[in-house]
Amino acid sequence: MSRRSTEGSRFSLSAQWNRALSFRSSHRSSAGTTNTTTSSAHSTNTPSSSTTTHHRKPFSFTSLRGASQPPLSKRLYRLIKSANGLIAAHETAARERLSIATQLSEWGEQTGDDALSDVSDKVGVLLSELGEQEEAYAGRLDGESRAVLKVIRNTEKSVQPSRDGKRKIAEEMGKLRVREPQSTRLVTLEQELVRAEAENLVAEAQLGNVTRQKLKEAYSAEFLATIERAEKQAILARHGLRLLQLLDDTPVVPGDVRPPYAHASQSRQILNDAEDDLREWRLDAGFMGDDKTVVVDGTSPVAPKVEEKGKQKEKRDKKAEVGRESIANTG
Amino acid sequence: MSRRSTEGSRFSLSAQWNRALSFRSSHRSSAGTTNTTTSSAHSTNTPSSSTTTHHRKPFSFTSLRGASQPPLSKRLYRLIKSANGLIAAHETAARERLSIATQLSEWGEQTGDDALSDVSDKVGVLLSELGEQEEAYAGRLDGESRAVLKVIRNTEKSVQPSRDGKRKIAEEMGKLRVREPQSTRLVTLEQELVRAEAENLVAEAQLGNVTRQKLKEAYSAEFLATIERAEKQAILARHGLRLLQLLDDTPVVPGDVRPPYAHASQSRQILNDAEDDLREWRLDAGFMGDDKTVVVDGTSPVAPKVEEKGKQKEKRDKKAEVGRESIANTG
Repeated sequence: MSRRSTEGSRFSLSAQWNRALSFRSSHRSSAGTTNTTTSSAHSTNTPSSSTTTHHRKPFSFTSLRGASQPPLSKRLYRLIKSANGLIAAHETAARERLSIATQLSEWGEQTGDDALSDVSDKVGVLLSELGEQEEAYAGRLDGESRAVLKVIRNTEKSVQPSRDGKRKIAEEMGKLRVREPQSTRLVTLEQELVRAEAENLVAEAQLGNVTRQKLKEAYSAEFLATIERAEKQAILARHGLRLLQLLDDTPVVPGDVRPPYAHASQSRQILNDAEDDLREWRLDAGFMGDDKTVVVDGTSPVAPKVEEKGKQKEKRDKKAEVGRESIANTG
Repeated sequence: MSRRSTEGSRFSLSAQWNRALSFRSSHRSSAGTTNTTTSSAHSTNTPSSSTTTHHRKPFSFTSLRGASQPPLSKRLYRLIKSANGLIAAHETAARERLSIATQLSEWGEQTGDDALSDVSDKVGVLLSELGEQEEAYAGRLDGESRAVLKVIRNTEKSVQPSRDGKRKIAEEMGKLRVREPQSTRLVTLEQELVRAEAENLVAEAQLGNVTRQKLKEAYSAEFLATIERAEKQAILARHGLRLLQLLDDTPVVPGDVRPPYAHASQSRQILNDAEDDLREWRLDAGFMGDDKTVVVDGTSPVAPKVEEKGKQKEKRDKKAEVGRESIANTG
């Protein structure tokens, strides 16, 4: 993505969001037809009249890479390429998070300040889990959304020859009618055309069915992954805020000694709570109304890794014991 | 970040998360002291005994860039550099999202299928808003967290000379005592040392105060930004799932014509709902318990851009009218 092209799309997006809550100014009902087997627009690659020029900008660069694609699958080919960039960006974000988490813990230790050292270490643990969630998100975008869009693209690719074949026969008949209207070959071509049209009818129906099913599947998966990452990262962040409250930042005058740090058990408890909350997270599909079931089926809330550690019992015990300590400490 | 070094840190993180919920195997209570003015560990850059070697790996590359920094501020200098990488990654993710959103809308239009066209267009609008949220997140990490960490780093930098000065005087006295124990210069140096120690006592106190205050400030802001992005993106994703339910993906046999698409008003309504939910989003600080107030003060829930558009009235009207349509359509 070049900065310029991005701003091009950015501009058009916000402009549209302000107005019709749509990328396109024209009303959908006026464009295309309700018949999935009639895809004339599908086979052309020029923007329809309802597409304003600044919508084209974003493609001015990627179009070079897409040139080898048949017109029908060109757009999706590019979209899938962009999805690759999106996934890579989230993977990078995850790596940087994990690196920052370690560095923060290391830095805190070197301050030689007990409170800073403990809080920065525990915050680091939460940040690293934030990174793990980011990485899992990237993985799901790749495996459950981008991979599914490829199925649509491949079907589009495979339908192209059927359209071309049909067109060629029709063209040849047109020429022949002019040159020698009496040619018996016209009869043969007529039969070929009927066969080609039947074949194409099937191909277009397949394309319509695959496209609807897979688009729904791909973006349902993407939205579900977005919800899971969002809610788990919000859990981690809220516990992070609790951790920071353990750090006494009232200024001391030179030479004074801070009261010793007494919250080590509480900070450990906060990490335990975060671990429990992640493990107990489930998708709330209440939002979906009558579609609720669809979504609940669609998702499989992945239990966070921490679950596999079979140390729940131990943790519970620690939790209870620490709970008492905490009360004692916060006096 | 090199892949190898990342995996190095990744390994150590998960290993630690499994065990002590800490990056460091040793117990904090054993390291450092509770006196922020005693920062001997602070002035050395070699890993303490409690730091295992795989913790060092991640720095094997960045250490070159940090070489120009005084030892005291080296670690934070690197951490701030990594934060820069994190922010850039989220900015890239935002750009790709916005590009994908436009491409999806364009692609849907070219299918010539009313349902695909409308749903892909509206899903594109939600994806673009998802991108806007990602971008806002990157901006807050940069302005409210990374910038604040720089204040700590600069204080660390400024404290270094004070430590060096103190050490030099002490060393000179040590040599002199050996060479000429009777030297009157020892008296002068003694006085200089007392002054240097007083100066350093203040510097170290300042460092301790600034470090605690700014660390708390930086990561509170980062966690609050994480919560806001997470909850707003979850809102958008849930409405996205609703949108996809409007796409009928039951297969049709070749030649059959799908029933005309009748959900245009509902899809518009879903975008209106998403817009309303974003605007009405507020931080729920319930999680914070007694620290609630602190956090609520700490945050300033940024009203989404859509709020500034002074089209609420119009929207409400559309909403009501659309509401009736929807009921009519879903018959």
